[in-house]
Amino acid sequence: MSVDYRPMWSQLGLDLNAHDALLSVLGKAYQDIFLAQTDRPEGMKYFDFVMSEVHGLRIKELLDAKAEGRKVIGSYCVFVPEELILAVDGVSVGLCAGAEFAFAEAEKLLPRNTCALIKSAFGFKLGKVCPYLEACDLVVGENTCDGKKKAYETLDDLIKNLYVIDLPQMKSESGKALLKAEYQKFAAKLEEMSGKTITAERLRKGIEIVNNKRKALHRLAALRNASPAPISGLDALLVNQISFYDDPLRFTNSVNALCDELETRIKAAQGVRPQQTPRILVSGCPMAVPNWKLPWIVETSSAVIVGEESCVGERGSRNLTQDGSDTRLDLLMDNLVERYFKVDCAVFTPNPDRLQHIREMFATHNAQGVIHYNLQFCQPYQIESGGVERQLEDAGIPTLVIDTDYSQEDAGQIRTRVEAFIERIQG
Amino acid sequence: MSVDYRPMWSQLGLDLNAHDALLSVLGKAYQDIFLAQTDRPEGMKYFDFVMSEVHGLRIKELLDAKAEGRKVIGSYCVFVPEELILAVDGVSVGLCAGAEFAFAEAEKLLPRNTCALIKSAFGFKLGKVCPYLEACDLVVGENTCDGKKKAYETLDDLIKNLYVIDLPQMKSESGKALLKAEYQKFAAKLEEMSGKTITAERLRKGIEIVNNKRKALHRLAALRNASPAPISGLDALLVNQISFYDDPLRFTNSVNALCDELETRIKAAQGVRPQQTPRILVSGCPMAVPNWKLPWIVETSSAVIVGEESCVGERGSRNLTQDGSDTRLDLLMDNLVERYFKVDCAVFTPNPDRLQHIREMFATHNAQGVIHYNLQFCQPYQIESGGVERQLEDAGIPTLVIDTDYSQEDAGQIRTRVEAFIERIQG
Ligand code: SF4
Ligand code: SF4
Ligand code: SF4
Ligand code: SF4
Repeated sequence: MSVDYRPMWSQLGLDLNAHDALLSVLGKAYQDIFLAQTDRPEGMKYFDFVMSEVHGLRIKELLDAKAEGRKVIGSYCVFVPEELILAVDGVSVGLCAGAEFAFAEAEKLLPRNTCALIKSAFGFKLGKVCPYLEACDLVVGENTCDGKKKAYETLDDLIKNLYVIDLPQMKSESGKALLKAEYQKFAAKLEEMSGKTITAERLRKGIEIVNNKRKALHRLAALRNASPAPISGLDALLVNQISFYDDPLRFTNSVNALCDELETRIKAAQGVRPQQTPRILVSGCPMAVPNWKLPWIVETSSAVIVGEESCVGERGSRNLTQDGSDTRLDLLMDNLVERYFKVDCAVFTPNPDRLQHIREMFATHNAQGVIHYNLQFCQPYQIESGGVERQLEDAGIPTLVIDTDYSQEDAGQIRTRVEAFIERIQG
Repeated sequence: MSVDYRPMWSQLGLDLNAHDALLSVLGKAYQDIFLAQTDRPEGMKYFDFVMSEVHGLRIKELLDAKAEGRKVIGSYCVFVPEELILAVDGVSVGLCAGAEFAFAEAEKLLPRNTCALIKSAFGFKLGKVCPYLEACDLVVGENTCDGKKKAYETLDDLIKNLYVIDLPQMKSESGKALLKAEYQKFAAKLEEMSGKTITAERLRKGIEIVNNKRKALHRLAALRNASPAPISGLDALLVNQISFYDDPLRFTNSVNALCDELETRIKAAQGVRPQQTPRILVSGCPMAVPNWKLPWIVETSSAVIVGEESCVGERGSRNLTQDGSDTRLDLLMDNLVERYFKVDCAVFTPNPDRLQHIREMFATHNAQGVIHYNLQFCQPYQIESGGVERQLEDAGIPTLVIDTDYSQEDAGQIRTRVEAFIERIQG
């Protein structure tokens, strides 16, 4: 980084030494995992740049936005609708944390058997290393899993301006009514904070921006159906991860530019891996930056990942919000609720759509096997993976369930299992 | 047992050998833990008898009730209202399971990091050892914790007639509306099954029976305020456990008879332990039969338990349903919802009432310390216990958090910690 961001980080209250340590680990991992790849699309340069400035330029942009009176809203879940945030001219940032940091501190406040995502979110706060979190005017939690739901009660003591959205547990009519009521309350909260009124026009604009972002991600996903795969799973995951941090317009343009390039590659039958490389669909818990362990293992075990059934992936980005010609705010809100209510997170019961979606993705992406990725102690996904594995295998789809966390200790063991699985699907 | 119940068990589809093994462990534990106590009230004889016939006479009664056309409804949570079951002349039985049985089988269907209660419920089904479960016409699950919520999806394949009640996660107006809607649906289900219509009169009768049962339990609880304690915590827990299985009228009479005797004891200053015995309040996860490990350790470490802030205890039994003079069914249903909506289970967020209730019980029962009992992998209670411990200690209430499961492996270690805690509160 050429600019000295240390005064900015200081001002945000970061612990500069701890933060230096985190950045250096992050930088090294990025070098080893991403930059070491060969034959990457040129279009990834933009995302490499974003990552190199993830705690720098982007944070400066957030602070500039705040100086203009715009609000920065952080969230831990794809159920927090960016459309509403944009409708008050706010900036939405994902706060999901993918690194083991200050876990010892976090474990003083949380049971050891809490999933790594949650521990990491606490660790980033307690260790004072996340400039996104510190830049937020509002941090939005949500009642999804028990872990997050109950952890927010403790986080509430650590974070000023924590706001919790209640969520249903079933896809019932009353479940949908609850989601709608909660989105209305959240919209009112945003209006109050920002001093801006959400009009139909403003919301339609927000929907359009987010739809365009999702369309670009859908386009990227569809290009990965090609064989040979035109882009690595690691790079595609990175694009999905960056979608939670970056300016949405610039991001959308960059994804589309990348897609243009991939189309050229596909026409030229140019793959990032040889044609016969085994194709893997990854499904399960979200992978937040810099949680790249499993895809790195898979893609350095002579396989390629062709899709992510994950909230950092297609579960989060699929389905557009109808904007159509609705000029009534209440109808637009209904459309928003319809769109989000389709998210098939394992916190819902029952959740048959998810199995269906995995099967669809397996077929569409011409995958040969599914790796179900569970974070240890994530009961929703771990329990759901049991049935998913049985039903996929019954349908003739080879499936490997991996339970892991953010440590590197089990990397060797996972590699052995992944290699055996790849051998299996190669028949 | 004098009667040969083996044909009955066979008919229910139990695995007789496995069931023999379970009964023999249970019988031995009961002998060592309960009958080995000295100076027990005479009134406990009834409960000893019930326990000796827990898989015998009581099951025969259930089958007799079924032969008369009555329905047997099993449940895993105090949110399933017995009042409604009684209003269709049904029989309510608790299915919570407190023993490690067929855990290896259960762990083929559930992640290892599932709480012992849930694994035990699966183990009892897979091992074919629970005559209550097999006698049920309907098994009612509920969306409380992630563990149960998601496990019911799998249990659904194993149990015919599983019915799941959705539950809110917050004590909000929409949360209450959801509970009401779900109770109405459950009432309709019971009506359909039984062919009986729930009238105001029938529901009032059900409310009266359950209120009387709860009043008897409240009376028992209040008598434990006395010093010296007139009854052991083990015996009082047993009474609470049996409240989930026994005929409610007979149970209520037996508890009241026990209470009459305890009143006499108290007048004579006759305690089950010496006056100066340290008094412990236990709080946390429910203890189902035969999960007696912690109270047994506490009470063989020269302390006495004077109250249980637990669903098998005061969290489950406190608060009566208003019956008053309401003759309108809808008002009675509202009263029912009001009563159950007060249950302060840790699955709710936030859950400040529970801390308040622990503090009240601590004062009322003249306790000297709180032991917070967590089942391993129970995220709601484990996470909540962090804040509860901090806040109780800040208020000068000595608190010990124990995380455990159903195995006996950690008994020695728990005993060491409990003994140190008892020394601490003796100052
Ligand atoms: S996995 Fe579920 S809880 Fe996590 S971000 Fe996705 S929707 Fe939210
Ligand atoms: S990974 Fe699972 S346990 Fe962790 S926050 Fe997401 S849903 Fe909750
Ligand atoms: S602890 Fe909660 S989930 Fe368990 S029985 Fe009580 S209310 Fe139900
Ligand atoms: S003890 Fe906890 S995890 Fe287990 S069933 Fe009860 S609430 Fe769920």
